[in-house]
Amino acid sequence: LTASLPRSASAADLAARLVEGDRLALARLISAVEASRQDAREQLRCLFPRTGRAHVVGVTGPPGSGKSTLTTRLAIEYRRREQTVGIVAVDPTSPYSGGAILGDRVRMMELHSDPAVFVRSMATRGVMGGLARSTLDVVLLLDAFGKDVVLIETVGVGQDEVEIARAADTTMVVGVPNLGDDIQAIKAGILEIADVLVVNKADLAGADRLVAELRAMLQLSTVGSREWTPPIVQTVATDGQGVAELVDQVAAHRSFLESTGTWRARRAESARRQVRAIVEDRVQRRLEALTSGSDWQARFEAIASRDQDPYSVADEVMNEMAKND
Amino acid sequence: LTASLPRSASAADLAARLVEGDRLALARLISAVEASRQDAREQLRCLFPRTGRAHVVGVTGPPGSGKSTLTTRLAIEYRRREQTVGIVAVDPTSPYSGGAILGDRVRMMELHSDPAVFVRSMATRGVMGGLARSTLDVVLLLDAFGKDVVLIETVGVGQDEVEIARAADTTMVVGVPNLGDDIQAIKAGILEIADVLVVNKADLAGADRLVAELRAMLQLSTVGSREWTPPIVQTVATDGQGVAELVDQVAAHRSFLESTGTWRARRAESARRQVRAIVEDRVQRRLEALTSGSDWQARFEAIASRDQDPYSVADEVMNEMAKND
Repeated sequence: LTASLPRSASAADLAARLVEGDRLALARLISAVEASRQDAREQLRCLFPRTGRAHVVGVTGPPGSGKSTLTTRLAIEYRRREQTVGIVAVDPTSPYSGGAILGDRVRMMELHSDPAVFVRSMATRGVMGGLARSTLDVVLLLDAFGKDVVLIETVGVGQDEVEIARAADTTMVVGVPNLGDDIQAIKAGILEIADVLVVNKADLAGADRLVAELRAMLQLSTVGSREWTPPIVQTVATDGQGVAELVDQVAAHRSFLESTGTWRARRAESARRQVRAIVEDRVQRRLEALTSGSDWQARFEAIASRDQDPYSVADEVMNEMAKND
Repeated sequence: LTASLPRSASAADLAARLVEGDRLALARLISAVEASRQDAREQLRCLFPRTGRAHVVGVTGPPGSGKSTLTTRLAIEYRRREQTVGIVAVDPTSPYSGGAILGDRVRMMELHSDPAVFVRSMATRGVMGGLARSTLDVVLLLDAFGKDVVLIETVGVGQDEVEIARAADTTMVVGVPNLGDDIQAIKAGILEIADVLVVNKADLAGADRLVAELRAMLQLSTVGSREWTPPIVQTVATDGQGVAELVDQVAAHRSFLESTGTWRARRAESARRQVRAIVEDRVQRRLEALTSGSDWQARFEAIASRDQDPYSVADEVMNEMAKND
């Protein structure tokens, strides 16, 4: 419906420029993807065969677990190993979105000035369309750009965030000692998708207890498989302690996936999730456009006054959307 | 597609029993709604004209803001005012989901034993279908059951959670002093939907600063309207301090909505959101069923090996779903 609106004469070859390593082209395509522009979709289609090389690593944990600092440290460690890195932060409380404490910000600025690192913070609100779709598209762009590793930082609360975390090749779940709610958050949310467990702020009293609790939970639960038990790595992200071991464990997980053929199966499952995210995004936007029309407003007012019910109006909307197809 | 499966001979009249005040009928209908059972949809349609009386109040704030304790205190205060209360907790870290500290749990048990209070914790994961749809349906059930006030506790991170928070008549956003990320979380997430701002743990040093910061933000931002500026209420939820004033402010907000005609406009907007949630839920489940079929598995594997791209497969899925309509 919406016509392609190239922002410059060269918009058509943004994809080609991205593949050649043009950071500006990458940044502009990311913006196009976030705005769900039609031209972005075509460029993504062209770029897709160029993707699949990057190791996509999820860093998931509740606010306060220090996962942004950890993500920064991971990037620094990967750079030390001469890997190029992309970071996608999907967290409104992330320092990448503007709330960093000073030390973090300095390190992040170092990262920003390193041409082999590309950091992008996804707006989690006000994005036109689905967060999962746009995040996964940005990961593909970073992959096509040639990043060896793409780190996705998510808070792990909310369906979209969990959907995103599941799309990673390797997911690390980050906990910290002594936050009363934390073990609960991990349990309720995301423990079952952990490939690597991280106990951050491991210099705090209580770290050993959290490690013991996680170990007990691993024994009781169905996390992992017979072949892979998630290792528990203790880190102090603020000074980088344990981060090298963490990177080793992430690499070990990749080796495991590749040696067992699980890599391909997981990527097929990720593809399924991505297709669903694309479809849901399109449906959502169609639905938004449809129900914003003034002709439907009367029906919503009728629901408010209880002269109609939302289930019958939903039936009508479904019929209308099918017609539009 | 799925046939109605009554769990007993009397399933057909669950709605009638609910209206008569049968708590077991309410609990069973909530379970049916969460499981997206076909019979639940029919019952909701029957019950809908009975709804609209309850004041739906959202309690939204980041983990650690003490909003579960606050919700409990609010319920106690409403009971003191001889109002009946329903509580829907949409938060994996909520004590209502099992993580309460002892004092909280005792108070919650008192609530549970009060027949005029009904507490339900929504599973935020593993729910078949959309969280927004099922939560809003549960709110309707509590409304039809005759609750004067329905409190929805949400963490306010994630699109679904924000969608739910927006569906309330009155939304309170809860912050606490001295959590570095908190003001950021409030800013990024949910400040703009606040009708009442709460500074909880107001006995902590730093509370005054947070109040001042929030006041400054209110002056700069577009929160509220010319007619309604969100009041800032300081509370100490653990001992109930400030909770009576908070309930007064919630009542004042309702009076404002009713006297200005905004009440009806907001309810129409909520209706729109609910219709969208119902449609999205149905689409999601259809999509899940479709893409789980073995005939699509080959396509996802082809995407994994880069022989196809997810955008083209998404086109195919859209076409297939339109056919199914």
